[in-house]
Amino acid sequence: MPKLITTRTRIADLGKPRVIIIGGGFGGLEVAKGLNGLKAQTVLFDKYNHHCFQPLLYQVATSGLETSSIVFPFRKRFANQADFFFRMGEVTQIKPEENYIETSIGGIRYDYLVIANGATTNFYGMKDVELHAFPMKTIIDAIKLRNIIIRNFETALLTDDPEMMNSLMDIVIVGGGPTGVELAGALAELKTHVFPNDYKELELKNMDIHLVEATPRLLNGMSEIASKKALQYLQGMGVKVHLSYAVKSYDGHEVVFNSGEKLITRNVIWAAGVKGQPIAGINAEAIGRAGRIQVDEYNRVKGHENIFAIGDAGIMENGDPKFPKGHPQVAPPAMQQGKLVARNIKRLINGQPLQPFRYKDQGSMATVGRNRAVVDLKAFKTQGVFAWFIWMFVHLISLIGFRNKFFVLLSWLWSYFSYDKSNRLIMARPKDGVQ
Amino acid sequence: MPKLITTRTRIADLGKPRVIIIGGGFGGLEVAKGLNGLKAQTVLFDKYNHHCFQPLLYQVATSGLETSSIVFPFRKRFANQADFFFRMGEVTQIKPEENYIETSIGGIRYDYLVIANGATTNFYGMKDVELHAFPMKTIIDAIKLRNIIIRNFETALLTDDPEMMNSLMDIVIVGGGPTGVELAGALAELKTHVFPNDYKELELKNMDIHLVEATPRLLNGMSEIASKKALQYLQGMGVKVHLSYAVKSYDGHEVVFNSGEKLITRNVIWAAGVKGQPIAGINAEAIGRAGRIQVDEYNRVKGHENIFAIGDAGIMENGDPKFPKGHPQVAPPAMQQGKLVARNIKRLINGQPLQPFRYKDQGSMATVGRNRAVVDLKAFKTQGVFAWFIWMFVHLISLIGFRNKFFVLLSWLWSYFSYDKSNRLIMARPKDGVQ
Repeated sequence: MPKLITTRTRIADLGKPRVIIIGGGFGGLEVAKGLNGLKAQTVLFDKYNHHCFQPLLYQVATSGLETSSIVFPFRKRFANQADFFFRMGEVTQIKPEENYIETSIGGIRYDYLVIANGATTNFYGMKDVELHAFPMKTIIDAIKLRNIIIRNFETALLTDDPEMMNSLMDIVIVGGGPTGVELAGALAELKTHVFPNDYKELELKNMDIHLVEATPRLLNGMSEIASKKALQYLQGMGVKVHLSYAVKSYDGHEVVFNSGEKLITRNVIWAAGVKGQPIAGINAEAIGRAGRIQVDEYNRVKGHENIFAIGDAGIMENGDPKFPKGHPQVAPPAMQQGKLVARNIKRLINGQPLQPFRYKDQGSMATVGRNRAVVDLKAFKTQGVFAWFIWMFVHLISLIGFRNKFFVLLSWLWSYFSYDKSNRLIMARPKDGVQ
Repeated sequence: MPKLITTRTRIADLGKPRVIIIGGGFGGLEVAKGLNGLKAQTVLFDKYNHHCFQPLLYQVATSGLETSSIVFPFRKRFANQADFFFRMGEVTQIKPEENYIETSIGGIRYDYLVIANGATTNFYGMKDVELHAFPMKTIIDAIKLRNIIIRNFETALLTDDPEMMNSLMDIVIVGGGPTGVELAGALAELKTHVFPNDYKELELKNMDIHLVEATPRLLNGMSEIASKKALQYLQGMGVKVHLSYAVKSYDGHEVVFNSGEKLITRNVIWAAGVKGQPIAGINAEAIGRAGRIQVDEYNRVKGHENIFAIGDAGIMENGDPKFPKGHPQVAPPAMQQGKLVARNIKRLINGQPLQPFRYKDQGSMATVGRNRAVVDLKAFKTQGVFAWFIWMFVHLISLIGFRNKFFVLLSWLWSYFSYDKSNRLIMARPKDGVQ
């Protein structure tokens, strides 16, 4: 294999195999951790300089947590891992025949490549929705959403036109998965406990929170009882849940549904789906459903010997009788695949055979609000206060770093006893407009 | 007086005198608090929806504190104050003859007007410096500065050109007041305790921190001993202090001094001065030095009976034998003036004579780093560890809200024992460029 020059990224060629990981989400992070101690060089590329704990993004968007509590700088996590290199940049092209990638900061050769660049919001080709609705996938999305919701409340104070006022206060969340359910619940708490103090001049009963789901039930990946309880909790909190409704268009003012019905609102949050972000150069035949890359039972990309795809970036069809259409797009499969890929790269370097992926389904959970969560575990299913404690415990221990755990716990305790959400801040220059 | 229509701001005319406060900084907040219980309507206008505790901005810029700890939503502070109204908007024009202001969100009539819109960065007409140097006056400035410093370190990893690498790592701070001194100290701590772990590939000894001051000493508003100790601390921490140096130009790459000497850097932080932000419509003859509005001993704007200007917005010349050129531009005079103006507005409404302003100088302080601060109090002067505790105590108790006090204290304790600064995050989309 010809030694190619490493341009601009300035990562020394140490004569060891080089593993490049694209993306430091749940999956990519596990690969990097798993390669610790291996006689190989690990290079992590990410567009951001920090890992983001996406399951709690909705709490940033709804003023419950400050941004810094749910993100963690990569350099801090890997400060003591030998032969680990982080580079902030976007991978723009893969050249498998040369074992080489082009990135926004230069090109670099790899021996093994792990694609773990996750998913992005899927607007299913609806350009108007993409233009006017707010996605909820990155930390910047969450900050913008928080800014917009609060700014629209400030603007609602300035009009005497009831339709305009309502359209600024009303919020439509599209997508009844965990993100949609958790957002709807958190917004209902803002409506009940926080906004009535902040906006005494507004009639908060006019603030409608709609949750729209295209299928007949919420939390499709969970049990029937969890779906039912989540629906019951949300309705009890005043959320208007619309099942079997699909959005046809949104022009920034009016959401139109398949049924022809309409809702007037300035706030549409799009949590209805995600898609992969395939990178140019990958075997075109391997790009599967929703832009996810088809992988074999070792998470190897079809047609490439030394390229892996994990988590949301990959899709392992027919690899698991329980999940013939691929594993759920949540953190645990990504993390388990990341761990296995790290082990398998070690085995490849040592000339050992690969081990196939076996998903250990640990269950799933979602929270609706204080004392209200739904939890499906292997051993049991539960809903309510105990479920809420399980949810909090699992999320706390999953956060990286003691400091983040500690500050999130304190924020939760504070909110629990004060019924307050302290971060209702518009963090943008006025001239930056809706940001 | 003709009753004018309140357009768009939608604040009911209750038939009570209306006091409008422009700006919710240290001064404006005290006016609003002081008007509590008065038979008057208080309306606070601000461009942001939160008060910002400016003395700790430098810790946000240097990754020490998260943004949410040093800001506080106005609506939360005044949720329980009757007849208080907050509006997010910018005041664009004052029409004193009509007792009316125009704002970005509509016009409104006042009976009493308090201008407390603070100061903005003064580049002294140097357009190139304004274009390329980074100001440090708002929370957004602080976040941008943090983003830029860390991003330039990431970029320094990508070059083999030593001059380029140094220019990305070197930082020049212009202005040896409290902001400049505190920034220089915090950056020196990043250089010593944090960056060596994060950037093992860079030679941290090549990171130069320069502090440039036009006069012969640092902390001009403080005692000789404080200036001397601050200089000694900074030099001990490796900061290169340049006294009696003034910046002539900066093109984004090269700082040129009056002496003709030059420094190559991509990072120039401008903390060298501020100026007022006079609003159109104010008596032109009242606009004094550096755009500050001249006020009489009651903080009334010259030529206007019912308009006050306080804090950085106003300048009370010859009002105090100790400060013939006006009071120092720090929080305490602004707060004391705010309190007095609130009392004087009550007296005006009750037909009582006004009370003149008498500044109670409580001393001043600045911190350089852990265990290193300088404090000038009336009773005594001290430097070092004890001064550092005084500095922390005074800043903690001055923060609004128990939650902010508690979280800042915890962050400080955490940093003290871990030598870490946890918020070294680039919070911007990659496409947002240098933000």
